[in-house]
Amino acid sequence: MVQVAVLGYGTVGSGVVEVIGKNNGIVSRNAGQELNVKYILDLRDFPEDPYGDRVIHDFDTILNDSEVSIVCEVMGGVGAAYQFTKAALEKGKSVCTSNKELVAKHGPELLQIAKANHCSYLFEASVGGGIPIIRPLNDCLTAEKIENITGILNGTTNYILTKMEREGADFDTVLKEAQEKGYAERNPEADVEGHDACRKIAILSSLMTGKNVDSEKIYTEGITKITADDFLYAKAAGRTIKLLAKSDAVGEDEVLTMVAPFMVDKEHPLAMVNDVFNAVFVRGNMLGDSMYYGRGAGKLPTASAVVGDVVECARNLGRHIPCRWEAQDAKLADVADIEDAYYVRVKAEKKSEAQAAFAGGRLLEIPDRDKDFAVLTTPMKEKEFAAKCQTLGDAVLSRIRLY
Amino acid sequence: MVQVAVLGYGTVGSGVVEVIGKNNGIVSRNAGQELNVKYILDLRDFPEDPYGDRVIHDFDTILNDSEVSIVCEVMGGVGAAYQFTKAALEKGKSVCTSNKELVAKHGPELLQIAKANHCSYLFEASVGGGIPIIRPLNDCLTAEKIENITGILNGTTNYILTKMEREGADFDTVLKEAQEKGYAERNPEADVEGHDACRKIAILSSLMTGKNVDSEKIYTEGITKITADDFLYAKAAGRTIKLLAKSDAVGEDEVLTMVAPFMVDKEHPLAMVNDVFNAVFVRGNMLGDSMYYGRGAGKLPTASAVVGDVVECARNLGRHIPCRWEAQDAKLADVADIEDAYYVRVKAEKKSEAQAAFAGGRLLEIPDRDKDFAVLTTPMKEKEFAAKCQTLGDAVLSRIRLY
Repeated sequence: MVQVAVLGYGTVGSGVVEVIGKNNGIVSRNAGQELNVKYILDLRDFPEDPYGDRVIHDFDTILNDSEVSIVCEVMGGVGAAYQFTKAALEKGKSVCTSNKELVAKHGPELLQIAKANHCSYLFEASVGGGIPIIRPLNDCLTAEKIENITGILNGTTNYILTKMEREGADFDTVLKEAQEKGYAERNPEADVEGHDACRKIAILSSLMTGKNVDSEKIYTEGITKITADDFLYAKAAGRTIKLLAKSDAVGEDEVLTMVAPFMVDKEHPLAMVNDVFNAVFVRGNMLGDSMYYGRGAGKLPTASAVVGDVVECARNLGRHIPCRWEAQDAKLADVADIEDAYYVRVKAEKKSEAQAAFAGGRLLEIPDRDKDFAVLTTPMKEKEFAAKCQTLGDAVLSRIRLY
Repeated sequence: MVQVAVLGYGTVGSGVVEVIGKNNGIVSRNAGQELNVKYILDLRDFPEDPYGDRVIHDFDTILNDSEVSIVCEVMGGVGAAYQFTKAALEKGKSVCTSNKELVAKHGPELLQIAKANHCSYLFEASVGGGIPIIRPLNDCLTAEKIENITGILNGTTNYILTKMEREGADFDTVLKEAQEKGYAERNPEADVEGHDACRKIAILSSLMTGKNVDSEKIYTEGITKITADDFLYAKAAGRTIKLLAKSDAVGEDEVLTMVAPFMVDKEHPLAMVNDVFNAVFVRGNMLGDSMYYGRGAGKLPTASAVVGDVVECARNLGRHIPCRWEAQDAKLADVADIEDAYYVRVKAEKKSEAQAAFAGGRLLEIPDRDKDFAVLTTPMKEKEFAAKCQTLGDAVLSRIRLY
């Protein structure tokens, strides 16, 4: 019997308890022995809950119980969650988490502590919810030099963009509706400004490079400036708009990581990733492209990934599962220096100037619409593009990179 | 240093040697120690090859060299490959393979021998080429009751169907072109009749159930009867045609496994899997849908998966990597008893009879075409559908299940 403690009885925590309970036969068989939730740590009491008798308020009870060998940290945040994770690992208890913020901030240190104490720190659920992506990168694509990772990593923004595309609605309208349905938080900033996707691509980029990619240094743009008009032009161009988080190996040892909305060709597999679904595209030098797709959030999908990690820890008790993510900072390339092609929408009165500035680009016009037009530019350096836009001043209504 | 032997210096074998050579830094770092190809077993000599000095002709050299701890069986077939694999495992040498035929036929026995000898039998490359799918099923989705697996598992047929769709061409024309380009074998039967996909879904179904799904008992239809006319109607219905290999959990302990062409809704992610790409859709009771997509064949993608397995074995020397696939046969449900909806194309002269037989279905007609029409039926049991078709006799021109 393997005893498990769950830290935090919120959405994911109650999911973890539910998955271990409902699928106990499968989970225990896969783990090689029975899994049991011995403690649930929460500040609150749950007297009506069937697992209410396992709820405790003092983390030390878990820490000092030598029967507990695996801890699920699903409380979130980087304060107590960090202290508890560290303490558990130092006691040789493996920790499985969905806490992307903590993984992005303290991943290398916690992995090092796990290694030193012959236990594991696993975080499959921190990126892409229930989609297996961390383990495929760590344990499957081990013969590959990973050249690129591109993901739709945030379900809320993907839901909003999908709705905008389908209904021709504006960002604010769809955001409000998403909030009413519970698909977006009341304070949606972390999602719509790209911060959530940024933490996730920081984790994936770190695994890709083996070095630490600091999420705070990643160039990040959100989707708040995307309009219904942009979707109109996207459609005319055979494209759609997605918030992509991507990371490219540049030269020998640099990585270019960014989060921004992109106009994606409708033929690209990422274009059909709709609603709250997530997907991660990975390009390796031998395999070429591969893609991992599924539910990137939600109670049970996320909990399923946490419990999958618990099973892996149970199979490897007393043994560290390796993960190459060193504390040394990865070298980040400067976004200004890379080449991108752009969609740029411009007021009609500046048509000749814009066509001159973006000579060679593809002109996009919508019939019976005379207030603006758009150009899909040829590839150019970001700083060159910015300079061209500056000459057009406030006639530039919007700009989105092409993918 | 971990010494590796490669059995068979054909396409995949030379790919394995190339991947270990070109990505040696990455591969060795991921393995935790240097990987080296010590022997290449082949009947031929390769005097001009940079690895020619490692080519040997006697398997016993490998078997009796205690330095060799990992063997890549990429020779194919179920004769010598079976003998060599068994002998290597009995000596405690782990075996990594791309040989789907052998895995489908002797998987449970070879896994049992590996377990008894504290080594591993890994076969990531046997399904989906370079796409990680075996390990995600075995090691990631371990908290899930898998309810369904549906895959596009054969690149040749997917290439042919994609071409037929795009060019409006007939099967024979496209097959010939594919053969000229080397995308289809001179004897294409294993691909176009669905046998290759059948072996692969047998492996996936066995992992899904934990019991043995015998590939020879799987209902299998190929794509040779699909016509350009069918694609015309598929387009009119907002669909495309794909050869799907699928497996559904039925009731408590049965599984329904089949390989057949399906008319797939264009909105479904599998519809956009084109050309030689493969994809596997997996539905779990907690996670819902997830999909794994990539190159399902080809020298380097397949070799990359074999070498990924070699890395996993190197990380686990002296230790069996578990895989639940018992020798006991899984209970297969009878295809005749399941419900499917159908596309059925019928000669124009039987319109009223067909509409009566498939009342409630959706009529599909192509403007300016009066020789035939089609119906997308309501769901009904396969045997019920077959009976209805029989009443229409040879007026039924084609029939394809809907997905």
